[in-house]
Amino acid sequence: MFSAEDHLYMSRALQLAEQGRFTTSPNPNVGCVIVADGRIVGEGFHLRAGEPHAEVHALRMAGDKARGATAYVTLEPCSHFGRTPPCADALVNAGVARVVAAMEDPNPQVSGRGMRRLADAGVTIQTGLLQAQAEALNPGFIKRMRHGLPYVRLKLAASLDGRTALANGQSQWITSPAARADVQRWRAQSSAILTGADTVLTDDPSLNVRWEQLPLSVQQCYAKDNVRQPIRIIIDSRQRIVPSAHLFSIPGEIWLARHKEQGQWPEQVQQLSTPLADSGKLDLVQLMQTLAQRHINDIWVEAGASLAGALMSAGLVDELMVYLAPKLMGNPARGLVNLPEFKHMSEVNEWQWQDVRKVGNDLRLTLRPH
Amino acid sequence: MFSAEDHLYMSRALQLAEQGRFTTSPNPNVGCVIVADGRIVGEGFHLRAGEPHAEVHALRMAGDKARGATAYVTLEPCSHFGRTPPCADALVNAGVARVVAAMEDPNPQVSGRGMRRLADAGVTIQTGLLQAQAEALNPGFIKRMRHGLPYVRLKLAASLDGRTALANGQSQWITSPAARADVQRWRAQSSAILTGADTVLTDDPSLNVRWEQLPLSVQQCYAKDNVRQPIRIIIDSRQRIVPSAHLFSIPGEIWLARHKEQGQWPEQVQQLSTPLADSGKLDLVQLMQTLAQRHINDIWVEAGASLAGALMSAGLVDELMVYLAPKLMGNPARGLVNLPEFKHMSEVNEWQWQDVRKVGNDLRLTLRPH
Repeated sequence: MFSAEDHLYMSRALQLAEQGRFTTSPNPNVGCVIVADGRIVGEGFHLRAGEPHAEVHALRMAGDKARGATAYVTLEPCSHFGRTPPCADALVNAGVARVVAAMEDPNPQVSGRGMRRLADAGVTIQTGLLQAQAEALNPGFIKRMRHGLPYVRLKLAASLDGRTALANGQSQWITSPAARADVQRWRAQSSAILTGADTVLTDDPSLNVRWEQLPLSVQQCYAKDNVRQPIRIIIDSRQRIVPSAHLFSIPGEIWLARHKEQGQWPEQVQQLSTPLADSGKLDLVQLMQTLAQRHINDIWVEAGASLAGALMSAGLVDELMVYLAPKLMGNPARGLVNLPEFKHMSEVNEWQWQDVRKVGNDLRLTLRPH
Repeated sequence: MFSAEDHLYMSRALQLAEQGRFTTSPNPNVGCVIVADGRIVGEGFHLRAGEPHAEVHALRMAGDKARGATAYVTLEPCSHFGRTPPCADALVNAGVARVVAAMEDPNPQVSGRGMRRLADAGVTIQTGLLQAQAEALNPGFIKRMRHGLPYVRLKLAASLDGRTALANGQSQWITSPAARADVQRWRAQSSAILTGADTVLTDDPSLNVRWEQLPLSVQQCYAKDNVRQPIRIIIDSRQRIVPSAHLFSIPGEIWLARHKEQGQWPEQVQQLSTPLADSGKLDLVQLMQTLAQRHINDIWVEAGASLAGALMSAGLVDELMVYLAPKLMGNPARGLVNLPEFKHMSEVNEWQWQDVRKVGNDLRLTLRPH
């Protein structure tokens, strides 16, 4: 059904889409390649919400050569007027003869409409080429569209025996500088960085993207001036955070999830009033639904053992990213995740390995729910 | 200095040496290849202590063709009368013209003597070809010869958050059947399997090699009738072990390391009287020296958190082998290793990654001291 050339051009479109991975949020990463007479005549990717979509960039580059050409797009072209006009119309107007999309729009309310509009205009359409790769570009956008929840990556960092700090709280540094640079990269790719009040009160972190600390490979393709600061979200169940915390001195939006709105806060701060669950803590599922409604695709969680455990127990973690240092800290040291006391091994969830690699002197393990 | 052919034949000798890895203890694994006129005319490996050495097997196969030939051996030929006559003499008598050894004998008292005897008889000698690979064949034999201590592999098995059992003690099964089969393989390759009284009293284990549970790849090259049972060593600091424990009902030697000899034991049992350290527990360094004197090369440790921690703190662990299951058991569950409470991260030892691989559904991590 798809030729070797089709695969080649779609692969290129996927590569292009990746160029937007630090900046498109809350929009998806999308790439587009236009091919006429066996040659690429247009290329484009989506860079930033409010700016042109991938197809528009590629069509501009192709100009008249788009007439009769094939367009490869990593996501079904949109059919609605948003902040930009519909791409399906642009493709039709440019005279594109054939459109190959890697996947349909994950939003069930519009899915298929863009392709139908193209077909109605006489364009040959095909869908599903390299779909798994296209889905991997946008796990957060897809989860939000399909399930009304963000895609949650929980970052954990520990010694080989699962310890995050010595008994006295000392934890600098368990992991290597390369692992910490890798964390900066994941922060930069996320819509939001989430933590709990305990972490803010104990570590007084910045929770921002520090361009200087990004891996060199990221700096090379992500200019300092373009840095997008993910929204910082603090879960403050017991309303303990105060405006003097260090993170308020750093520019960028901060959302405080609390039981009720309270206090005077800097302009950058919004309070998200969130109901309490039976546990007496904020209802995390409701909070996540709220965050999805507010267009948060991907959440990078850097939390302590309690919030990490609560997110896992609530089934809200889509991906574990565990940095393991080649050290043993021993049983007096602090543990990785607070979970209820299980009585039977059958109650313990099994995860699935996705990726295992060395990052600096540490091991980085990626797992997904079974 | 060494040709491509030299590398080829020594690689073959290394392969042959490996055939003895389940059976040669307390002798080293050794392989030998004899080459005349560009063809292999003799091959041999050492199979079992008291039986002929690798060189003798290869010379027997070569017969008259050994005259003027080159012999490749993974270890310097012996020059002393042990349970068999010296191999250096056998090579000279057979008329071998050149001997290439991967490494010298690690015993400082005889190192170089075999090669010297060959040189004195007019044989051309060379040493050091693929030496690192040859050393990797016999870490235990080499450590015992050079340092008077066995090579200690500490096996640990835990969830991703470093837990070995639920709070109530339940631990069956954290790791996968494939990981447990892998453990059987390491048991089978070791001179001895060591554990502590706690493990015996709690789990009542067999601590033997069960051929049926070995990986298929091992069964194929290690016939059931040949199975050598490693010596089982129990550290019983508080003299709590009783003869009714399950492991005494299983054939094979058992050494009980205790403060003093005491009680009536089955014939298979020896008590190793071992002085107490300041901790009130047995002096582990002295015990290990005793074990080396008793020709224990490689020890496979399957112990609880206390003995594991004590061995690590005493600097006696040469290799960690950690099986990590893709599960999180949570902070109420039991921890991997008892170590003293560190006050500073600088007190925490860093290890070096040696190998990382999937074994069944678990990850197997191998580390050595930094």
